Amino acid sequence: MKEPKKLGEFDLISRYFAPLAAAEPGALGLLDDAAVLEPEPGQRLVITTDSLVAGIHFPAGEGPEHVASRLLGVNLSDLAAMGARPWAYTLSVAWPKDWDPGWVEGFAEELGREQEKYGLHLVGGDTVATPGPLTLCLTAFGTVAKDAELRRSGARPDDDIYVSGTIGDAALGLKVLQDGIEGLSPDHAEALLDRYHRPRPRIELGRRLHGLAHGVIDLSDGLVADLGHVARASACLATIDASRVPLSDAGQAAVALEPGLLKLAVTGGDDYELLFTAPSSAAGDLETLSRELDLPLSAIGKIGPPEEGGKAPVTVVDGDGNEWVIEDGGYRHF
Amino acid sequence: MKEPKKLGEFDLISRYFAPLAAAEPGALGLLDDAAVLEPEPGQRLVITTDSLVAGIHFPAGEGPEHVASRLLGVNLSDLAAMGARPWAYTLSVAWPKDWDPGWVEGFAEELGREQEKYGLHLVGGDTVATPGPLTLCLTAFGTVAKDAELRRSGARPDDDIYVSGTIGDAALGLKVLQDGIEGLSPDHAEALLDRYHRPRPRIELGRRLHGLAHGVIDLSDGLVADLGHVARASACLATIDASRVPLSDAGQAAVALEPGLLKLAVTGGDDYELLFTAPSSAAGDLETLSRELDLPLSAIGKIGPPEEGGKAPVTVVDGDGNEWVIEDGGYRHF
Repeated sequence: MKEPKKLGEFDLISRYFAPLAAAEPGALGLLDDAAVLEPEPGQRLVITTDSLVAGIHFPAGEGPEHVASRLLGVNLSDLAAMGARPWAYTLSVAWPKDWDPGWVEGFAEELGREQEKYGLHLVGGDTVATPGPLTLCLTAFGTVAKDAELRRSGARPDDDIYVSGTIGDAALGLKVLQDGIEGLSPDHAEALLDRYHRPRPRIELGRRLHGLAHGVIDLSDGLVADLGHVARASACLATIDASRVPLSDAGQAAVALEPGLLKLAVTGGDDYELLFTAPSSAAGDLETLSRELDLPLSAIGKIGPPEEGGKAPVTVVDGDGNEWVIEDGGYRHF
Repeated sequence: MKEPKKLGEFDLISRYFAPLAAAEPGALGLLDDAAVLEPEPGQRLVITTDSLVAGIHFPAGEGPEHVASRLLGVNLSDLAAMGARPWAYTLSVAWPKDWDPGWVEGFAEELGREQEKYGLHLVGGDTVATPGPLTLCLTAFGTVAKDAELRRSGARPDDDIYVSGTIGDAALGLKVLQDGIEGLSPDHAEALLDRYHRPRPRIELGRRLHGLAHGVIDLSDGLVADLGHVARASACLATIDASRVPLSDAGQAAVALEPGLLKLAVTGGDDYELLFTAPSSAAGDLETLSRELDLPLSAIGKIGPPEEGGKAPVTVVDGDGNEWVIEDGGYRHF
């Protein structure tokens, strides 16, 4: 990390960020021009980068622990979707003029907790000033054994389509935050908000899917949009049954109060679960894996025949087999 | 690179950025969740990241080719300072609402030219919207043979202090841009401006310094400030003679017109030359290297004894041996 221009900022880096790099010798204490890492023989390096802008990707007044958790989470979720083990990350932050040392402290503390949970370390970065909003750019590095990386493009006709965990909680949590959901119990509202605030990248699941799954993606843009990416990359059509999409207790309660929210759950973003396709022969192994990880893996549809020109890649049907009309299958920013 | 939210942006990525990734299979066409790279056996990965913010690191109306050149240049210069060979980079861009497709096209074209010159490829990225200024975050990857990486911390007492090329042109170029230098010929003004606009990272020099140089850094914050980083990292004092700092013809002309500009040249930033220390026994090899690379390597001072508490790490003397007073040894942002 470059030495910054004003003393206060330098203090913050040495006090709050350098400790995040202390356990990784390749970070060179954040004191050199670059970091130096050496993957073990037979390991490939997996690299992903995602930026967050205050007021766009999270509310401008968001707590530092939520911003840190989201920033690492969205990137680690990409590593999970490749079957990679987290290793290291660089962080570049553009601070607005009114940055608050207490906020930075809380942000770095949460990065430290998340690092420990997922087994990676800060290895470099940059800190600059901006007249605009807080802008955070994280580049994450993972490792995966040669040829064991998961890809979006592997889906095959007749594969079952699975999702991990529960779907739609984050989008419903954002709805709670912005408009509220009338009649929802405080416990359920809290559960949805927590899913919005704290992505849980499915690292372990990703690492176990090699040899079982064909096409894999993490759910960031929304179930329908991300399944569309898999379908297009695999040149296949896909159909899911909305009534089989797994909802949490809180999600079910929200949909019971406002049935229209089911569509939000199925198209909303920020779930950071994994979606993958697998042949029916993998069903037994996936059941075992689900038990071992204590994580639901739900079959919600099928990969269909090869794509046809002009046909939308994803069809959503309801429990009665009626086709949904999806005007906007994608993620809506905060 | 994530598929963006509006069609125009998607078109831009597939049209202008995907071609920058086409020659690197590990980029996966920018279509997957992450890139997958595999360093050759015995090679270490060198990682650096730097962000640029419009209106802070470059004038808000800067041409796209200058922004692209600077963005890659500042990062490649960090790789040069580690002795690394450029390999790949990720790019995360926060576009302001009024982004202009023509600007993006020019930006991507220049990235393409620089890629070719330095032998690296785009392997991933992210594109987001911002209500603030254009903000660019580039993370660059290089490779270096095991234990051949250069470090800031290797300077030893009695080492000579060298710089490559000429010093101060970029800071004088910025002065031309902002205030003008009265009486300077248009050719000289143009030469200084070009050095400000187009960093020339000293990749080849860095790769040849292993075994010759002790402490190495690239000059981004300014000669005095960056030498201070080397001195502190090496726990030594350092002295340079301002009259030996190599100036370009244009730089000499500027200083002849305004003698006070010498101090700007010696303390100003953005040179992206390499500063290194070497024992006197390396002088012959360095002369040969300078001829082979057609790049001046000038001895401008000496590493002194181990640091003492309270003493500034860098002393600057003029040709008569008088000590300069440096109030602000660091880089001043645009």
